[in-house]
Amino acid sequence: MPNQTAAALSVRRPRVADVRVTPIAFRDPPLLNVVGVHEPWALRSIIEVETDDGRIGLGESYGDLETLGNLDKAKGRLVGLDPHDTNALVARVHEAVTGQPFIGQPFPAAGDKALASAIGAFEVAFLDLQAQIAGCPLYQLLGGAVRDRVAYSAYLFYKFARHKDDPGYPPDDWGEALDHAQIVDQTKRMVNDYGFGSIKLKAGVFDPDFEIESLRALRKAFPNHPLRIDPNGGWSVETTRRLMPRFDGLLEYLEDPVNSLDEMGEVAKFSTLPLATNMVTVAFGHVPKTVRLNAVQVILSDHHYWGGLRATQALAHYGRTFGIGISMHSNSHLGISLAAMTHVGMTIPNLAYACDTHYPWQVEEVVDGGREMFRFEAGSLSPPSGPGLGVKLDRSALSTLHHQYVTCGIRKRDDAKEMRKYRPDWNSARPRF
Amino acid sequence: MPNQTAAALSVRRPRVADVRVTPIAFRDPPLLNVVGVHEPWALRSIIEVETDDGRIGLGESYGDLETLGNLDKAKGRLVGLDPHDTNALVARVHEAVTGQPFIGQPFPAAGDKALASAIGAFEVAFLDLQAQIAGCPLYQLLGGAVRDRVAYSAYLFYKFARHKDDPGYPPDDWGEALDHAQIVDQTKRMVNDYGFGSIKLKAGVFDPDFEIESLRALRKAFPNHPLRIDPNGGWSVETTRRLMPRFDGLLEYLEDPVNSLDEMGEVAKFSTLPLATNMVTVAFGHVPKTVRLNAVQVILSDHHYWGGLRATQALAHYGRTFGIGISMHSNSHLGISLAAMTHVGMTIPNLAYACDTHYPWQVEEVVDGGREMFRFEAGSLSPPSGPGLGVKLDRSALSTLHHQYVTCGIRKRDDAKEMRKYRPDWNSARPRF
Repeated sequence: MPNQTAAALSVRRPRVADVRVTPIAFRDPPLLNVVGVHEPWALRSIIEVETDDGRIGLGESYGDLETLGNLDKAKGRLVGLDPHDTNALVARVHEAVTGQPFIGQPFPAAGDKALASAIGAFEVAFLDLQAQIAGCPLYQLLGGAVRDRVAYSAYLFYKFARHKDDPGYPPDDWGEALDHAQIVDQTKRMVNDYGFGSIKLKAGVFDPDFEIESLRALRKAFPNHPLRIDPNGGWSVETTRRLMPRFDGLLEYLEDPVNSLDEMGEVAKFSTLPLATNMVTVAFGHVPKTVRLNAVQVILSDHHYWGGLRATQALAHYGRTFGIGISMHSNSHLGISLAAMTHVGMTIPNLAYACDTHYPWQVEEVVDGGREMFRFEAGSLSPPSGPGLGVKLDRSALSTLHHQYVTCGIRKRDDAKEMRKYRPDWNSARPRF
Repeated sequence: MPNQTAAALSVRRPRVADVRVTPIAFRDPPLLNVVGVHEPWALRSIIEVETDDGRIGLGESYGDLETLGNLDKAKGRLVGLDPHDTNALVARVHEAVTGQPFIGQPFPAAGDKALASAIGAFEVAFLDLQAQIAGCPLYQLLGGAVRDRVAYSAYLFYKFARHKDDPGYPPDDWGEALDHAQIVDQTKRMVNDYGFGSIKLKAGVFDPDFEIESLRALRKAFPNHPLRIDPNGGWSVETTRRLMPRFDGLLEYLEDPVNSLDEMGEVAKFSTLPLATNMVTVAFGHVPKTVRLNAVQVILSDHHYWGGLRATQALAHYGRTFGIGISMHSNSHLGISLAAMTHVGMTIPNLAYACDTHYPWQVEEVVDGGREMFRFEAGSLSPPSGPGLGVKLDRSALSTLHHQYVTCGIRKRDDAKEMRKYRPDWNSARPRF
């Protein structure tokens, strides 16, 4: 581009003037999974990208030390960019995170989740700014709504009643869920409060025969709700083969029974129902082998580690081309992530399954208006109104949650370590069963 | 989205108020190819999408009756849309063109070039509007520049000196090119005038042994320019096998030697150089088989039939994931298409080869400022400056070119019919050799 053109245009186009990354910690219940149990505090990072005309774009990502380190290394390099320039964002984050020059291939064949996560964290904030500049909601900037609302599913967990160590706040009001009746009660409350039309059981915690009994109790209590189970790769191929006949007619899909793409390919050979994943196909570099093995029929997308919202749309595009269904994965998160998930979910034609969210398990918020900003109706959400993501920071809440980060003592999620407080001999090696 | 939100936002967001499609015809030289020879008039359509605040987004596409019929069927359905809403654009064009309800899968597995072409024609105009609204050049809206300029290649044709019938305008000044010396002279002029650094010979016209002699003459005259040959599927697999050893060290890539994806897969088994295509992989529905056969190493993208500029970027994304290089295909076109090609080319990291363009073969223009708007330097172009595509219509030129369409008598490109004026026994069946 001739220099005079760039100069002429730059006068009136907003540029990134400042980028802030604030680590936060929020209360998290003692939810059980294959690795262990959630610690009392979930870590996240809040990203603010401020332009020289005073707009602020928001992002939310992981809060572990590796992510924070990458975001900190990259943030200064974004100053001066036009918030439309996501190619420069990718290049600069790539250079900051890898220390290598960017040569047009953001994600190496093996995938680099840390790099893609850093890119995605900033990209959401850049897109928030783009939509603010265009004066439209983010879903509109992303191509427009293909549905009125985005459906989410009830995300059930076996759980303890309270954390082992007193975290300095009262126990959650969900109580214990360690048997079938308690899981059914948890589901009843969640379906009643949120209207969810699909149910997912986080599994890999107990012997699979026990967990299938939980599913049967759920089927009895909710005869028409699609059911899913996610043992997070906790089973062997042989265990999965033994269990498979028992899922027939019971499950909508089977999520990550095993722990590697090769094993999923093995399971796919005998599976009688769709296999879903957020563990074995987690980067574009994994797609060719996934397709070659026909290993996966549903990919649970996640803009946090696929590289952002445009990357999520690209993944959905691959899904259309290769006949792979798309849904959405979740970690413990707050409203900026929920808004981003909902906006992009509005735009994906082949979002074929209700999305996961941990949101019902949280009690705190960082966005202005708090949790009231997100009103589930019939298990689904419409995106916040207004330009961009439609959410703003509650700075008082941000300050509180940052203080919790500073004082909570957790710097890297470690569910296994937390579990060893209950069971000192805990071993989270997979397959567990 | 709650109704009050939509209402509140719609007040200040521009909507499509009118869509106009104007068929045009412009002078085209008697260029030879595997099917026959270019007729004296090339047909195109000029698309204008006007918003209720007076902005005009531009597109350019094919001008045959099928395309015009599809554009006419669809254009009224776009009125009222936010120009950001390309998902609604896809759905409405799909419904207009196919008569079937849109259910989230724009392109059936077999591909539907006519549908994707209609979508792409309007999508460029919508994106032009989006960038105008954002106040940035289109390449910036599309993610930002990854290069300063987009490289194009010299596109050589065997040609006659003049059309068989007098088209009512003087013959082009390129003269005849039916032997090696004339092809070299054509190349010298084109490289001298435009600075192209790569050379592509449109082939499939003469016996391949003759055409390879042309390549050898070019190699001698231009020892450092990468060379390509494109017989447009005019050869059999066996002919290609016989010729292959002679391309070693001579060609950058071999484009469409054969006429089907299966045959390309056969050729790929013995090919010693990258195979390129704009004929056998022309829709996302073709990608899975292309990948399975490893049939193609370079895809010549074309926003006109892949479904627009975002689709072109999606294709490039697939290219990164599957290790397929990306370049760009061209038909006879004017400046709106050239601007669109250049803008999207600025944004594609893995645009690994100089793009095709027929632009040097044209003498007319429909954009304000005429052909001076596009100044090739060292064979490459920077996009026009200003927001959006950066080009506006010259309404007087549009009127002239439309009048030419009305009077030229051509309604569907038919190079074979034109060739039969010279050779009544002409048979364009492939493979020819």
